[in-house]
Amino acid sequence: MPSMNPKTPETTTLGWMGTGVMGRWMCEHLVKKGFKTIVYTRTQAKASPLLDQGAAWAKNPLELASRCDIVFGIVGYPSDVREVFLGGQGALAGARPGTILVDMTTSQPSLAREIALAAKAKGCYALDAPVSGGDIGARNAALSIMVGGEKEIFDAVMPCFEAMGKTIVHQGPSGAGQHTKMVNQVLIAGNMVGVCEALLYGHKAGLNLDTVLQSVGGGAAASWSLNNLGPRILKGDFEPGFFVEHFLKDLMIVMEETRAMNLALPGLALAEQLYRTVKAHGWGRKGTQALYLALCQISKVE
Amino acid sequence: MPSMNPKTPETTTLGWMGTGVMGRWMCEHLVKKGFKTIVYTRTQAKASPLLDQGAAWAKNPLELASRCDIVFGIVGYPSDVREVFLGGQGALAGARPGTILVDMTTSQPSLAREIALAAKAKGCYALDAPVSGGDIGARNAALSIMVGGEKEIFDAVMPCFEAMGKTIVHQGPSGAGQHTKMVNQVLIAGNMVGVCEALLYGHKAGLNLDTVLQSVGGGAAASWSLNNLGPRILKGDFEPGFFVEHFLKDLMIVMEETRAMNLALPGLALAEQLYRTVKAHGWGRKGTQALYLALCQISKVE
Repeated sequence: MPSMNPKTPETTTLGWMGTGVMGRWMCEHLVKKGFKTIVYTRTQAKASPLLDQGAAWAKNPLELASRCDIVFGIVGYPSDVREVFLGGQGALAGARPGTILVDMTTSQPSLAREIALAAKAKGCYALDAPVSGGDIGARNAALSIMVGGEKEIFDAVMPCFEAMGKTIVHQGPSGAGQHTKMVNQVLIAGNMVGVCEALLYGHKAGLNLDTVLQSVGGGAAASWSLNNLGPRILKGDFEPGFFVEHFLKDLMIVMEETRAMNLALPGLALAEQLYRTVKAHGWGRKGTQALYLALCQISKVE
Repeated sequence: MPSMNPKTPETTTLGWMGTGVMGRWMCEHLVKKGFKTIVYTRTQAKASPLLDQGAAWAKNPLELASRCDIVFGIVGYPSDVREVFLGGQGALAGARPGTILVDMTTSQPSLAREIALAAKAKGCYALDAPVSGGDIGARNAALSIMVGGEKEIFDAVMPCFEAMGKTIVHQGPSGAGQHTKMVNQVLIAGNMVGVCEALLYGHKAGLNLDTVLQSVGGGAAASWSLNNLGPRILKGDFEPGFFVEHFLKDLMIVMEETRAMNLALPGLALAEQLYRTVKAHGWGRKGTQALYLALCQISKVE
């Protein structure tokens, strides 16, 4: 069992890797709670707001981990996760026995298990703890945090999770957090196809989509995506809440997992194809609602 | 303009055709409001609760319409709609000039326009006014009613709609009510594919789906279907809220419409295929969540 008790922030040193649109807010909540925090990012400038608030700086994940009790990461792709946790200059290379590694990136369940095994071999621990809730959830400490790994380690890190999220659930052994996040993304994929196709049908049928949303937004067809992204589509607002290219990364991960499971999910496979057309049109940095634009292209709808 | 004013129930005679799981409750609300109501159903026994409450009986739609100011219908398939409104013994054949026909069945937008034109040729009026909200919405007078047709006729029938529904929106000319209902069904189709595939993925990944729902049920993946049908799937409860075979009828209607529009909706087309497999397995009288069972079959998941 880990020797530190993060219920006493002043005696626990945290490491944080990755200060993008999510990570910068999540780390800030920990700093504000009084945890002694050390930060590493590829671009040091991105960390300055945190350094201004009292966080220290480490020049690479290895050095970071050598000074910390718990090391969090929220980076980009699985390849980035592998590099910052398992690479030659990665966190595990510098970690003392008993250190806890917590990957909050949405990444591969299989990689989460690999990190956990590598950690165990060094007398360390690992959790996979991806989140949902977007930059607004990160900012408001309202994230849903889905955690895989040993229950005792989950409990030990709980005071940190509570600083960042509202819905914090232990989902099972290593990888279960990532699998749960995949469930979340499969739900969104199916629903986004429904939302964009339904609004396109209504548009093509000549309906007033504002009044249509009044009729369909409160019953069995209601969803977060319809009620939050539907109005943006109607206004022609395709700016990102969540980037198409990040969503496509998640869909690739879950497609790989289904292949390994010998599981056919035809709707997911179609969604992945459709989001590929969105990216092909150059809309990878638009929001996921840009699927509407790609569907317009497919049928040449003005 | 119609001569009756349904704001004074005692001077308006209503006709009602179809007393299935929805229609019996909807008609009962009108009877209770004090409208003089005449009922026609194929099976007279089904109408007895309404006759007991004071409704009169007509032996066919023609005779019914000859005695009414407004004639409502909520029957099964478009072929039934055609028969009760436009058939030789149908309502329009018996309707006096000024009579309003209101079809509340989920049916074809093109048939709604055909009924409206036929009505106009006889000096009558027609609305298409399909609903969502299921038998519970019907029972609680909480339906969403989506109406196509002339605005003045919509206004004239409003006191009746208000007895049956909560969200009552005029969506445009004849057919616009049906088109809006199709938007609703396309939304549900995409979302149900997402819900059933996501839960199957989680099951196959060995997750505890009860705790998974805690993590994913409140954020960007949230939907009415997930939060209402998800728990039923987890309990192995595939009894109908809404019948697979009725949903499949709706998907057929909207597929026909998209063909006429030259509009490709690949997610909808896939949903229609998947629901066909549900019916092929003999689950046409199960609820729409039985899609989960068909997906299990496809990948031989126990």
